[in-house]
Amino acid sequence: MAGSKLEDLFYDTLKDVYYAERQILKSLPKMARGAQAAELKAAFQKHQAETEGQVERLKQVFEIVGKRAVGKTCPAIDGIIEEGAEILDEYKGSAALDAGLLAAAQAVEHYEITRYGTLKRWATVLGLTEAATLLDATLQEEYNTDESLTALADSLVNEKAMA
Amino acid sequence: MAGSKLEDLFYDTLKDVYYAERQILKSLPKMARGAQAAELKAAFQKHQAETEGQVERLKQVFEIVGKRAVGKTCPAIDGIIEEGAEILDEYKGSAALDAGLLAAAQAVEHYEITRYGTLKRWATVLGLTEAATLLDATLQEEYNTDESLTALADSLVNEKAMA
Repeated sequence: MAGSKLEDLFYDTLKDVYYAERQILKSLPKMARGAQAAELKAAFQKHQAETEGQVERLKQVFEIVGKRAVGKTCPAIDGIIEEGAEILDEYKGSAALDAGLLAAAQAVEHYEITRYGTLKRWATVLGLTEAATLLDATLQEEYNTDESLTALADSLVNEKAMA
Repeated sequence: MAGSKLEDLFYDTLKDVYYAERQILKSLPKMARGAQAAELKAAFQKHQAETEGQVERLKQVFEIVGKRAVGKTCPAIDGIIEEGAEILDEYKGSAALDAGLLAAAQAVEHYEITRYGTLKRWATVLGLTEAATLLDATLQEEYNTDESLTALADSLVNEKAMA
């Protein structure tokens, strides 16, 4: 892969996601504190622990490509997290708060799904098989988290928001 | 649904997506101009036409809920589009430009997928069956666009980026 332009793009995107994961780690405790339903609090806390593991996997990928693990400001995740903060602020005390927080968390998940999906494909094309496996492990966790959140919306959160 | 807090959240999110779609409409011609491969240019142009239809559907949903079709600044889409603009700038003339633009477009798709998925579910809970059908039609288009982009990445764009 030496010298390939795709290698540069892979590294840039890795830095973007590394920054994003660390912003998510800062944001999740605020979401968990804000959530009204115990089930949603628990979902955010579970994802916090998972995200810590995902940061570790990213560090391993940086090691595989022999580059420093540094973040690069990612306006996308900043904007997505800002919208979650707006919901916390604007819907405080409202029956719809949890539905809004859950939707904000799913927007975060989908950002991660698209980025890890891309990174995994690029790692494969670049012949970085071990990196592709690590990135895929995180991708599958993100899919599962998104599905669990949808199930929680359907079983509890959206109905509560009708109050 | 009168008076439900979920109704407020639904309307707020509708305004968010309405703003997002219009920003996407402004951004797609720049992406199409920047793309190197004719196939990627064509994909962006096709999505431009689709997005115009999606804006029309949103206007119908605003009508159904009897509210004005107005946008609300959406920092998430602003950040996602900003990242696409950075790629256009930083990878101009690089063999990896198309791979980066395609990834940026998929980040946009995933934002729309999560928002329309949420809006469709909320419309259903609120008893807005016709609105749910309209939102689902757009959701399916976004899924299809995302899949077509993945296919294009696999068949052409990622390999070209290895040059």
